[in-house]
Amino acid sequence: METAIALKAASPAYFLKAARSGTSKDCRRRQFSVRANGASGDGKMMRISKEKNGWKIDYSREKPATPLLDTINYPIHTKNLSTQELEQLAAELRAEIVYSVAETGGHLSASLGVVDLSVALHHVFNTPEDKIIWDVGHQAYPHKILTGRRSRMHTIRQTSGLAGFPKRDESEHDAFGAGHSSTSISAGLGMAVARDLQGKKNHVIAVIGDGATTAGQAFEAMNNAGYLGSNLIIVLNDNKQVSLPTATLDGPASPVGALTKALTKLQSSTKFRMLREATKNVTIQIGKQAHEIAAKVDEYARGMMSAPASTLFEELGLYYIGPVDGHNVEDLVAIFQKVKSMPAPGPVLVHIVTEKGKGYPPAEAAADKMHGVVKFDPKTGKQFKTKSPTLSYTQYFAESLIKEAEVDDKIVAVHAAMGGGTGLNYFQKKFPERCFDVGIAEQHAVTFAAGLAAEGLKPFCAIYSSFLQRGYDQVVHDVDLQKIPVRFALDRAGLVGADGPTHCGAFDIAYMACLPNMVVMAPADEAELMHMVATAAAIDDRPSCFRFPRGNGIGVPLPPNYKGTPLEVGKGRILMEGDRVAILGYGSIVQTCLQAADILKTHGTLTTVADARFCKPLDVELIRRLVNEHEILITVEEGSVGGFGSHVAHFLSSGGLLDGRLKLRSMVLPDRYIDHGSPKDQIEAAGLSSKHVAGTVLNLLGKPKEALQLQ
Amino acid sequence: METAIALKAASPAYFLKAARSGTSKDCRRRQFSVRANGASGDGKMMRISKEKNGWKIDYSREKPATPLLDTINYPIHTKNLSTQELEQLAAELRAEIVYSVAETGGHLSASLGVVDLSVALHHVFNTPEDKIIWDVGHQAYPHKILTGRRSRMHTIRQTSGLAGFPKRDESEHDAFGAGHSSTSISAGLGMAVARDLQGKKNHVIAVIGDGATTAGQAFEAMNNAGYLGSNLIIVLNDNKQVSLPTATLDGPASPVGALTKALTKLQSSTKFRMLREATKNVTIQIGKQAHEIAAKVDEYARGMMSAPASTLFEELGLYYIGPVDGHNVEDLVAIFQKVKSMPAPGPVLVHIVTEKGKGYPPAEAAADKMHGVVKFDPKTGKQFKTKSPTLSYTQYFAESLIKEAEVDDKIVAVHAAMGGGTGLNYFQKKFPERCFDVGIAEQHAVTFAAGLAAEGLKPFCAIYSSFLQRGYDQVVHDVDLQKIPVRFALDRAGLVGADGPTHCGAFDIAYMACLPNMVVMAPADEAELMHMVATAAAIDDRPSCFRFPRGNGIGVPLPPNYKGTPLEVGKGRILMEGDRVAILGYGSIVQTCLQAADILKTHGTLTTVADARFCKPLDVELIRRLVNEHEILITVEEGSVGGFGSHVAHFLSSGGLLDGRLKLRSMVLPDRYIDHGSPKDQIEAAGLSSKHVAGTVLNLLGKPKEALQLQ
Repeated sequence: METAIALKAASPAYFLKAARSGTSKDCRRRQFSVRANGASGDGKMMRISKEKNGWKIDYSREKPATPLLDTINYPIHTKNLSTQELEQLAAELRAEIVYSVAETGGHLSASLGVVDLSVALHHVFNTPEDKIIWDVGHQAYPHKILTGRRSRMHTIRQTSGLAGFPKRDESEHDAFGAGHSSTSISAGLGMAVARDLQGKKNHVIAVIGDGATTAGQAFEAMNNAGYLGSNLIIVLNDNKQVSLPTATLDGPASPVGALTKALTKLQSSTKFRMLREATKNVTIQIGKQAHEIAAKVDEYARGMMSAPASTLFEELGLYYIGPVDGHNVEDLVAIFQKVKSMPAPGPVLVHIVTEKGKGYPPAEAAADKMHGVVKFDPKTGKQFKTKSPTLSYTQYFAESLIKEAEVDDKIVAVHAAMGGGTGLNYFQKKFPERCFDVGIAEQHAVTFAAGLAAEGLKPFCAIYSSFLQRGYDQVVHDVDLQKIPVRFALDRAGLVGADGPTHCGAFDIAYMACLPNMVVMAPADEAELMHMVATAAAIDDRPSCFRFPRGNGIGVPLPPNYKGTPLEVGKGRILMEGDRVAILGYGSIVQTCLQAADILKTHGTLTTVADARFCKPLDVELIRRLVNEHEILITVEEGSVGGFGSHVAHFLSSGGLLDGRLKLRSMVLPDRYIDHGSPKDQIEAAGLSSKHVAGTVLNLLGKPKEALQLQ
Repeated sequence: METAIALKAASPAYFLKAARSGTSKDCRRRQFSVRANGASGDGKMMRISKEKNGWKIDYSREKPATPLLDTINYPIHTKNLSTQELEQLAAELRAEIVYSVAETGGHLSASLGVVDLSVALHHVFNTPEDKIIWDVGHQAYPHKILTGRRSRMHTIRQTSGLAGFPKRDESEHDAFGAGHSSTSISAGLGMAVARDLQGKKNHVIAVIGDGATTAGQAFEAMNNAGYLGSNLIIVLNDNKQVSLPTATLDGPASPVGALTKALTKLQSSTKFRMLREATKNVTIQIGKQAHEIAAKVDEYARGMMSAPASTLFEELGLYYIGPVDGHNVEDLVAIFQKVKSMPAPGPVLVHIVTEKGKGYPPAEAAADKMHGVVKFDPKTGKQFKTKSPTLSYTQYFAESLIKEAEVDDKIVAVHAAMGGGTGLNYFQKKFPERCFDVGIAEQHAVTFAAGLAAEGLKPFCAIYSSFLQRGYDQVVHDVDLQKIPVRFALDRAGLVGADGPTHCGAFDIAYMACLPNMVVMAPADEAELMHMVATAAAIDDRPSCFRFPRGNGIGVPLPPNYKGTPLEVGKGRILMEGDRVAILGYGSIVQTCLQAADILKTHGTLTTVADARFCKPLDVELIRRLVNEHEILITVEEGSVGGFGSHVAHFLSSGGLLDGRLKLRSMVLPDRYIDHGSPKDQIEAAGLSSKHVAGTVLNLLGKPKEALQLQ
């Protein structure tokens, strides 16, 4: 919210409505001259130049000048550009993005892949009246730059900065927010239907990657679009990769799923290559007639009809056009203009083929295409990775799972297109036959794992906390209700820093611990994580889950050979003995509780700190002891209301332990979404820092002044 | 669990392993003679007879004899039957099911549609080694009868009786439980992969209806199956209907979705009809050679390859066979035998065409095919519907939504193939342009609704509590996080009687109320429901939801013309003033709280009863007053831990109201799944009856003897 207000205040041009329909030749010439002057007046200009094989950008020195981009603040400024100018704009955008992301980190190659598409879409369509919905949304950097946010790109993914994804609060040009994949067609279809019901005439464009089409929701939406027949433009951005960051640890992820294979077949078909060559030749001509453009669209639409993948979309009732070279601005513009001018085409699918990282040689060459990056040197693409003394929780999870699998050949692993993010690429390397990447398909992943377990295997299903929301019914109906021993490894639980609210794992404790059969646990540190992997492996009569945070371990001694030891189910532990006050932490926030105890010590209070380990079953003996031996009990968790604190409160209430003696406080995530930002800023904003915990205790002890001093 | 134990104890034959491979002619003759004797020795026998156009069953009198079925307790007993005997068995099964369901109510027509398939599958495959997974599972009655549960069919869907769906606890022949749709291919693929990894050789068969293929999970699973290439048999049971009970209120639901249209095209194609006729002629021949059968399978597999729907499945990497007449036992047996004998076919999709209600004229003729029925007269199919003085909550919801929509043309409705179940068929009739059935696609339904709302419409998304679990990520990510005003009407919240644990809406309070922007409410009665419909219509700056139970209203006076009045958001109400004890109910359980107060009055205790109305935002003023003016506060809800009671406890704890005075009890659903049964039995089992509430209070008041007397 703050973001949006600041943006609007800083950008009066945002509200300018004039000149939208200005298409006179004068206007066109004036804009052209800006570019021409810029391009010829300064030696720096030549570092972005058109050569025989396309536009070249010289990344060898500091950021090149971007004279044409400098004149473009909003989409309206692209309306009168010629094809060559649009191409130059795309080239300058590439340079802008590379140098900008080099300073901030973020998603690089997806944005580079859709620069030409973004320019073509904004040239042909008129946002915000027309709606462009970017699926997943990490490819929206060029869109953000073209829609008034260029000056704030240096704040992306930082506290109070621009979001890393489209966000409705941030700009009226962001028609729909994203972060999770495969939602764009559903949202776009809703917008198209709403338009029709209200007699409006705008266009709706959903841009979705090929990886995202492996998710069932995309299929549901295409099927429904074909049935309803509303005018809707779906751009299938086919970059031959599962487009989530599946490859951040261990090289590129291969395309998964039969559909992707069909697309690949199509890309490599002779017809497509011939067409691509043909269009290249056409493109260099100047002054093409309108009917030639129309003919080319027809060629795309008709000539490729028999391509392998097209039939699938046609079965679903979509009018298929493609495959189109997604880096050919002229073709893209021609096709979009044609589609735009059709009176009632129904749902149209424009299949474009792009390359992630296009135009930035280090990204093109990188195994992971530089999908998600930290700060890097734009000259070389070399990332400035900070060396940490510890590994990520993710890696500790993967290492200990490998150790379990070495001694138990029934252990298998399932993930949903997140081999890198979940660490299971390591497992895959070691046990290629026992690791299953099912595509972006959390629903299927969960029930598939249930099937594996029903036949005696021991599946670990590794899915981010916020992504398991998509498999929730399957967790309830296929796993928990049938008491099938699937093990869920919930990575990225709690706050997730720069990844922001869409990826925040706030709700998993509430939505998992309410299920009757589920064992629900969370490790206080990386050694505990390894023990919980061993515990989950050992629990074979019911489902279990454990949640762990984004980020690195804290450096505790690890079990020998990374092999954990099963914990007693439902038993917590006391880490520090005090007197009047007990703090009971759940998960990695236990470290915060220990820090709070240190603060309290300086205030003369000895605090008992306990690590619950299990939210379910609760360690009722431990809790009873904490309650009986202390005046104050504080529960702390990095999750929403309805989670660990609620289970403790329910037990205390049922057991009569709340009847007139105890002071109970549950500290949970606040009842709002925490914006992206640094982990420290986030925990502060969430009111879950050690000072917050200590302050709560001091207030309860009747020391409000001391509590105040902590802030 | 109890079910399974009882079954095993009563059925020693269950464990018989002999004669599995007995295929001698002697054995065959002996079995045949049983049938022949039966068929000819008694006038009653002739009521199931083979005639020129197939098997006829005379439903005009009491239940006909079933001499062949009487010899079949387990699948092994079907192994040596001839084709004609299998057909007779199917006919007898039909009669058995009709007369059995006439006595119990339950799902009728889906089971009648797969009688022939069930016989063929059990004849060819060997459960429990081979796995048959029935998608959704309401069509599993013939399977249950053929797998040792015939004698308990009269208990189906009743307290301590057989489940209405497959259930792993109930029989080892139930490979995977169900209730929700579209999970079978995922589970089957998991089982197939587990088989391969463990070097086993069994077969896995997933039987899925065409309606269920509109769900994204089915697509995810087929895509993954095509990629993995494991041997898996998918039987697509195409009955030209969305197969969930969408039509229980208002006639049949038309097929939804482009895919279904393609299937319909295929069914009506000349080729298919010709083939069907041809096979009919072939079927009446006797002594057909093996190579003829094989040739026919090839004909199915190759001859139909160019049928419209086949390409979709072939794109996904499945070997398509069909369409096959699903009521032709001989063809089904031939095809399954062929598929079974292929060494490594990979995933095979056998597309069969069936008719719901097949063989029972009243079901065939009924608009809803008698999908879900109460007790009925088998002669006529006339159901014994009890006349209730009130309508169902579902109907009150629909009526009041229509009233809102009459005065606000921005109100639209979305449901997921549940027009009947959600009452939106009434809305559809009144506003055909403003009602959207998206198919069995809850994920898409939610985001589609978000798209509608983003463009200024006011969508009501009506989904059962347990089914919204399937759209949970979309609720979080696409609606709540973006604060988009979608209204969720959660029907079937809380316990659901005979529908059982798969359909129990136990978790929605926990999983919805943990979301930051969501307004979460529940009506105490049907008039309140109407007011909450009006409230949700009025809340246009954030998402909202309201939950209401299965069953009928309680008969309170309704608002004039069924048009509700918006409630003040976050305000509850006091229904009855007492002194020491306050009971705060949430939702329809408020009625139970009032009854508890009546009981307590007879024990000399005057109780305050309040209706919270809102779980979020909580009425903190009301709660503070209840706490300040009473010694005891009890919260009551028909939901799991983590819900309303947790929100109250969290508020009390944060506000210091728990510090040493109050006795708090939260009464929630117990931490286990409540089995199907009568609503009364369920509420008793859940510990949420008025006597339980009153007993809790009496115990807290120090009157344990009086509490005990209540039981």
